[in-house]
Amino acid sequence: MAHARGSGILFVLSGPSGAGKGTVCKALMETLPDMRLSVSVTTRPPRPGERHGVNYFFHTKAEFEAMIENGELLEWARVFDNYYGTPRAYVEENLAAGHDVLLEIDIQGAMQVKRAYPQGVFIFLIPPSATELEARILGRGTETEDSFRQRFGAARHELQMMKEYNYVVVNDVVEAACERIRAIMTAEHCSVSRNLHLMSEW
Amino acid sequence: MAHARGSGILFVLSGPSGAGKGTVCKALMETLPDMRLSVSVTTRPPRPGERHGVNYFFHTKAEFEAMIENGELLEWARVFDNYYGTPRAYVEENLAAGHDVLLEIDIQGAMQVKRAYPQGVFIFLIPPSATELEARILGRGTETEDSFRQRFGAARHELQMMKEYNYVVVNDVVEAACERIRAIMTAEHCSVSRNLHLMSEW
Repeated sequence: MAHARGSGILFVLSGPSGAGKGTVCKALMETLPDMRLSVSVTTRPPRPGERHGVNYFFHTKAEFEAMIENGELLEWARVFDNYYGTPRAYVEENLAAGHDVLLEIDIQGAMQVKRAYPQGVFIFLIPPSATELEARILGRGTETEDSFRQRFGAARHELQMMKEYNYVVVNDVVEAACERIRAIMTAEHCSVSRNLHLMSEW
Repeated sequence: MAHARGSGILFVLSGPSGAGKGTVCKALMETLPDMRLSVSVTTRPPRPGERHGVNYFFHTKAEFEAMIENGELLEWARVFDNYYGTPRAYVEENLAAGHDVLLEIDIQGAMQVKRAYPQGVFIFLIPPSATELEARILGRGTETEDSFRQRFGAARHELQMMKEYNYVVVNDVVEAACERIRAIMTAEHCSVSRNLHLMSEW
């Protein structure tokens, strides 16, 4: 994939709960050797097998709160007793060096990133249908009737956030969704607004 | 390629003289069986082997002028003694039936189409460099020194029209250029503005 001169592109993969963001992100990364995956920072303890700098950057609450204070996070959220966030430096340094960066994140996080970095490309991943989403949530087998209704209702509500994004990709088959996302990446590198430097090169 | 519900997309392939629009358009069509290629109408006589409705629609000047009068052309131009134009009906009928339409056209024509149909996707094809353009023009072997300077100067001037387009594709290798254009087509079908109907389907 040709890179825009000077600067890479930030691609934000987001979408409602149950869309399959994690699976698609992992499959994408396997086919994009030059893409840099943004690693989140968290205050929750590592689970067995998780490595600092690979799955997450693990920090204490005091360290995390200092990062917030110093504007070191592109976005962050507190979930129950733990913080999660996206380190700004990793993203900005890679973009400046001409590398594309992929960030997989929930909708609230994506909206924070959009405010901080509107020139990013925001991709909304959705399940193929309400029926399929229902099946996916139930398939986890961990839901009570109440929690199912809550998750399903939230996902329908979240679908309305689509209009805040640049692209919507239906995750019917993982490989097909990846193919569409790779096409979006190629197309964005061809957008005129990212290639105006070509006009002065002749 | 998934089609946006209800309506196809008009893709306009254009660019400066010497960019290789015709070659790329032909190669694209060979790999896109569902794409409809817009056929131009002209008043010049058919050359040997050219067929009505395939290479051009051949019409008399009186017929062409009636088409102008009746608003039947998306764009048209007079080149020396002959008219050339794009029939509106073929484009609009195919788009309404959900088919994508590809239109290969010079920059002046593309700008007319943009005024008539701004929701089209305008792709600017350019040679990889000024040096390469020079070689391509000279390679035709039909240029005098004067006509070369004129063509080359025009192409440099035309390059500034890039900013009126949505995408710019460098035609370094034909198959690579086609791959980028197919990616643009896929991406445009994923654009949120063409898929807002998904929000009301759940």
